[in-house]
Amino acid sequence: MKLLVINPNTSESVSDLIRSEARRAAYGDTEIVVRTAPYGVEYIETRFESLIAAGAIAQLIAEDHADVDGIVIAAFGDPGLPALKELVDIPVVGITEAALCTAVLQGTRFSIVAISNRIQAWYRECVGTYGLGSRLASIRSLEDPLNDIGTVQDDFSDPLLRLANKVVDEDAADVVILAGAPLAGLARSLGGRIPVPVVDGISAGVKQCEALVALTTGTHQKGSLSRPPQKNNIGLSPEILRALNTRPQR
Amino acid sequence: MKLLVINPNTSESVSDLIRSEARRAAYGDTEIVVRTAPYGVEYIETRFESLIAAGAIAQLIAEDHADVDGIVIAAFGDPGLPALKELVDIPVVGITEAALCTAVLQGTRFSIVAISNRIQAWYRECVGTYGLGSRLASIRSLEDPLNDIGTVQDDFSDPLLRLANKVVDEDAADVVILAGAPLAGLARSLGGRIPVPVVDGISAGVKQCEALVALTTGTHQKGSLSRPPQKNNIGLSPEILRALNTRPQR
Amino acid sequence: MKLLVINPNTSESVSDLIRSEARRAAYGDTEIVVRTAPYGVEYIETRFESLIAAGAIAQLIAEDHADVDGIVIAAFGDPGLPALKELVDIPVVGITEAALCTAVLQGTRFSIVAISNRIQAWYRECVGTYGLGSRLASIRSLEDPLNDIGTVQDDFSDPLLRLANKVVDEDAADVVILAGAPLAGLARSLGGRIPVPVVDGISAGVKQCEALVALTTGTHQKGSLSRPPQKNNIGLSPEILRALNTRPQR
Amino acid sequence: MKLLVINPNTSESVSDLIRSEARRAAYGDTEIVVRTAPYGVEYIETRFESLIAAGAIAQLIAEDHADVDGIVIAAFGDPGLPALKELVDIPVVGITEAALCTAVLQGTRFSIVAISNRIQAWYRECVGTYGLGSRLASIRSLEDPLNDIGTVQDDFSDPLLRLANKVVDEDAADVVILAGAPLAGLARSLGGRIPVPVVDGISAGVKQCEALVALTTGTHQKGSLSRPPQKNNIGLSPEILRALNTRPQR
Amino acid sequence: MKLLVINPNTSESVSDLIRSEARRAAYGDTEIVVRTAPYGVEYIETRFESLIAAGAIAQLIAEDHADVDGIVIAAFGDPGLPALKELVDIPVVGITEAALCTAVLQGTRFSIVAISNRIQAWYRECVGTYGLGSRLASIRSLEDPLNDIGTVQDDFSDPLLRLANKVVDEDAADVVILAGAPLAGLARSLGGRIPVPVVDGISAGVKQCEALVALTTGTHQKGSLSRPPQKNNIGLSPEILRALNTRPQR
Amino acid sequence: MKLLVINPNTSESVSDLIRSEARRAAYGDTEIVVRTAPYGVEYIETRFESLIAAGAIAQLIAEDHADVDGIVIAAFGDPGLPALKELVDIPVVGITEAALCTAVLQGTRFSIVAISNRIQAWYRECVGTYGLGSRLASIRSLEDPLNDIGTVQDDFSDPLLRLANKVVDEDAADVVILAGAPLAGLARSLGGRIPVPVVDGISAGVKQCEALVALTTGTHQKGSLSRPPQKNNIGLSPEILRALNTRPQR
Repeated sequence: MKLLVINPNTSESVSDLIRSEARRAAYGDTEIVVRTAPYGVEYIETRFESLIAAGAIAQLIAEDHADVDGIVIAAFGDPGLPALKELVDIPVVGITEAALCTAVLQGTRFSIVAISNRIQAWYRECVGTYGLGSRLASIRSLEDPLNDIGTVQDDFSDPLLRLANKVVDEDAADVVILAGAPLAGLARSLGGRIPVPVVDGISAGVKQCEALVALTTGTHQKGSLSRPPQKNNIGLSPEILRALNTRPQR
Repeated sequence: MKLLVINPNTSESVSDLIRSEARRAAYGDTEIVVRTAPYGVEYIETRFESLIAAGAIAQLIAEDHADVDGIVIAAFGDPGLPALKELVDIPVVGITEAALCTAVLQGTRFSIVAISNRIQAWYRECVGTYGLGSRLASIRSLEDPLNDIGTVQDDFSDPLLRLANKVVDEDAADVVILAGAPLAGLARSLGGRIPVPVVDGISAGVKQCEALVALTTGTHQKGSLSRPPQKNNIGLSPEILRALNTRPQR
Repeated sequence: MKLLVINPNTSESVSDLIRSEARRAAYGDTEIVVRTAPYGVEYIETRFESLIAAGAIAQLIAEDHADVDGIVIAAFGDPGLPALKELVDIPVVGITEAALCTAVLQGTRFSIVAISNRIQAWYRECVGTYGLGSRLASIRSLEDPLNDIGTVQDDFSDPLLRLANKVVDEDAADVVILAGAPLAGLARSLGGRIPVPVVDGISAGVKQCEALVALTTGTHQKGSLSRPPQKNNIGLSPEILRALNTRPQR
Repeated sequence: MKLLVINPNTSESVSDLIRSEARRAAYGDTEIVVRTAPYGVEYIETRFESLIAAGAIAQLIAEDHADVDGIVIAAFGDPGLPALKELVDIPVVGITEAALCTAVLQGTRFSIVAISNRIQAWYRECVGTYGLGSRLASIRSLEDPLNDIGTVQDDFSDPLLRLANKVVDEDAADVVILAGAPLAGLARSLGGRIPVPVVDGISAGVKQCEALVALTTGTHQKGSLSRPPQKNNIGLSPEILRALNTRPQR
Repeated sequence: MKLLVINPNTSESVSDLIRSEARRAAYGDTEIVVRTAPYGVEYIETRFESLIAAGAIAQLIAEDHADVDGIVIAAFGDPGLPALKELVDIPVVGITEAALCTAVLQGTRFSIVAISNRIQAWYRECVGTYGLGSRLASIRSLEDPLNDIGTVQDDFSDPLLRLANKVVDEDAADVVILAGAPLAGLARSLGGRIPVPVVDGISAGVKQCEALVALTTGTHQKGSLSRPPQKNNIGLSPEILRALNTRPQR
Repeated sequence: MKLLVINPNTSESVSDLIRSEARRAAYGDTEIVVRTAPYGVEYIETRFESLIAAGAIAQLIAEDHADVDGIVIAAFGDPGLPALKELVDIPVVGITEAALCTAVLQGTRFSIVAISNRIQAWYRECVGTYGLGSRLASIRSLEDPLNDIGTVQDDFSDPLLRLANKVVDEDAADVVILAGAPLAGLARSLGGRIPVPVVDGISAGVKQCEALVALTTGTHQKGSLSRPPQKNNIGLSPEILRALNTRPQR
């Protein structure tokens, strides 16, 4: 099985973190390919930055989907989802939706620990869109400005650990999600010091995508995730046009 | 007052419909400028088509916002919202959110009449995102394929009228929204034959945008709609970069 | 266009504030007529006081509706709505519903700043009735007793400013509503010192009512806001009887 | 124990039905006093008719509350509630809220059978206000016009029986509420022919009010149902003024 | 009328508290029989302990239902409900659902005061299952470990009183529920010192069960609470088998 | 990795179906052990039957958990969850929660196809408890009585196929869940004839459990899923006592 993991942020240092954690999480015979957004921002904190990223991801999916079995969108907030699922006939999994599923299977309420205050609104809306607002205990985040997105988890490991314990003690979270690709792998290192299960988006995304690929539940020939109806269009990239046209039409 | 009305569809015939209805709805001293998406699809029916449109709208906003007082996004489903509101300091109003507000001020429950079955999922999710699902009586739509997006309202005026009456009689709608830019102006011509208020997205969008501009309630210096924090980025268009940089940073 | 603005409170000093702000908000050719509740309480803080006001407003609407194009109910909490919309065939807009629409068009979450703790329950229920509870960030209010309802906004401008900033900083509100007719106009004077858009109910009500009148979306010939079915009745005022009987019956 | 049962409709024939069923439902030592609204409509079907009734009920409560232990508002839709609970220190129970409680104790989902289509919107909103929308299976109603409100349950016993069975068979209701004071007592006569528990509003209201009176849980000295804060007022009836003033102030 | 009140906890001292309060709450001619769970834990704090209790209650109901008119499940959290209502044709009322109904009839928002932090999750989920989450102001609980479950209300009367006042002052509760059978009767003794109505689960359960028995609304011949369809089974106790088989089958 | 798959129904024929599908779904190095409920009913259709099953499952978990890495509860409706997760420190996954997660990762709305009308209420409540009601398009079920629970999927393959297509065409489901252990494996055989992804509970449960085991996210040392506080108890089985006592106490 071959999975394409897309970093919607433009930072290669984050892609490295993603690659390492994805590799650790994947089964031995799962091949992991990581691609980085060719344009956009260093790390996505707002809805607008996510909108920009969505276009970049669409292009990467269109370029590479034919060679892989499943795709993981590796930015918390799931830029471009669920829209991007209309584009191809293989599983496209966001690390938020994967993390939420992984969390709710382990506890009735989860909290999200994030890297900045600004990012909270986007995350909250994302959880709401997925219909899981009633299981969200809280979102808490770092207060201080970040130095280097590639070293956030090292620079702030103590505050992040405090936040994780705080959501357990004060917000009654049964599960903690350490949110954001820049924190990829942190759950693994902090896990033992947090008294409830800790979910990492990257590894959750990889495992959920592996599961979907293995299940072969079928494709969307009808319904709102099938191929968009064909119609006149202009200015779409050749790769996106080809992706749309190679999906069997309903 | 000068309003930029953006047609996220690429069809000039729809832009013409939009321009006419916007002009009819606007106050005499409101100047209306219509721009058409430079790339994308003829008419947006799915989330993915909306995602593509969002990028095109961002570019148009970035190019033209400095010369106008407010912006109307003229595709039902509100592609790119609320993300696009982060980009500039003037009101950016979607015709869906405007139509919903106009509808709920006139009745406790509204229905949406749409031009295709496929489009329903996107509309339903949009209403849900705005938190108004409890006031949605139903969404009903045309069943037959469209011939020409510019003449839908003429080609299908009888079925659309029947649907509008059906949502009143069977779904207990107090207000009907005729949804989609291709139906711009239809409410005006059918109004007398539908026994409840009928809302047109374009005219609702223009009036709501005029109201916001007139109210001068202030800009977002803080919070989730203020300027995205500055950070490294690559590949953004010069216009988008300039728009982001000319918003006062929090 | 001529709008009837009804102050459901019995205080003439509040009517003066309403008149001034309504006049400032209205377009130049909009005529504003303000009427004050002939009976009831000085300012409405509770559901029971609102119930009393509803009867008084019904009478004023019945008396004056034939001479105007639209009606604004100028007490936050919208006493008598949506019931009063059944009475006449012109738009009847509450300042709460108008403020909520104006707020949600400018941000995903809003907070309400109010003049007393007691008033919070009524406001919270009102937002819930409108189905917008998911977009309410918080309600905060003054703690101290009021001296004179006509000078609340002057007497408490500092605490109100602090509350407005607090809902932004602590409750993640993207928009602030300064609630209650006694605060009419305060948004205008404080706006520059609050870092997000600030909505004033009176001006929002006037603009939304102007928009509805201009849109001429049609009347309720069917549905739950059409004329109540005729039946035996006793003791209704001649004006209310006449209003009911002059609506075309379904 | 003495209970005041208020018929918010002006029809004495409905008051007779109410009196009979209340008497049958009450414990032997409960005294039942029925009063009829001195003004308003024959039977309430709409929000506006309910608004008118609310004023009439307020007056009756103010006049008579001192002599009774509890009050039942005997119109489905609960006109004036929860506002009227602020007025006095004894239990004031609406037959809707009483019927809903009685229903949800007997099944996870209930349906409401009503006497007219027009009345459905008001009932639906009432259930929503009480927060029990998720347990409402459906509302169904008679289609034909009524002849005489006092004989509805006889004139339409067959269609009402059919509706009651329909909500069980098609809407998966576990409990049926026969709604509206004009149907008082019908549950008793039809019960054996409906295969699930059938709730009558009047008897539910009497039993719930008896229970509250017996429980003596205490009064509202604080909070949103305590006495409205004293303030200048004009034009209130002497009885309402006295009722407000005899509640201990917070 | 004869009511079976089941203590799902194994503690006889709590059964004594239940018996006393049930007796005080019941009408003079209501006979109260209390039974204690034959197996399980001293007092239920978690979902798993509730699961164990559910089996014990099922057995007690099966053994004793034929001799009584109604059954009260006397542990907050309502172990085994609504499942246990499928077992017999007489009312089975949980003290949580009874307390919630009793609370919402007296105020729009209620809070729950509980005996331990751990118990909160179970209670919160229970309120959610009943669809009344929107009317829950808060849950607060004792922090310190309990000495003896039979004397909790004496050992902690001051902290419990403080919590009850806190939910009124800080969480805007209009009604307080003192939750848990170990607090049976405490509402009666503390009532005068809490400024809003205080609901006791046991007495609420008894009054609601008395009301249902008196109303004789009918049994479930169809629907999800009728007798489970007959099918092969093994290992069920003779009493449970008999109870299932003596319900008329749909 | 070794997974214990528990059939909460007593039917060995269903255990055989479960074993086959679990084996097909599992990775090659995952060992599958299936156990059948030692008491209860042939197949669970109601809440009460689920309550009985919950006790049986608890005993099986207590007996066998020490030898396995994860547990799958293989009855749709997830009897005993989330309570049973308090009992042990390894993942316990219900096939409903697993199927729901697998479904929502593949579409915004899913429908459930079930084997009997009676079973719908239990399933609907289960989805609601998991907070995913907003993503449920519909539940549809077989109408005719079953002959043999072990051959349902063969006896009714045509009607089940029709139902699966109906929820796509009429209810706008993007994903179909074929619900219930008796349908284990049917998705695999019918998949090609249903135009959207089809989820099988057993295989979803196995993949989700494998994923959780592989992720090693940590255990519940605090919070509502940690070990229940120790207290006096009587009559618990030695295995359950041992399981409770071997979890590290918070």
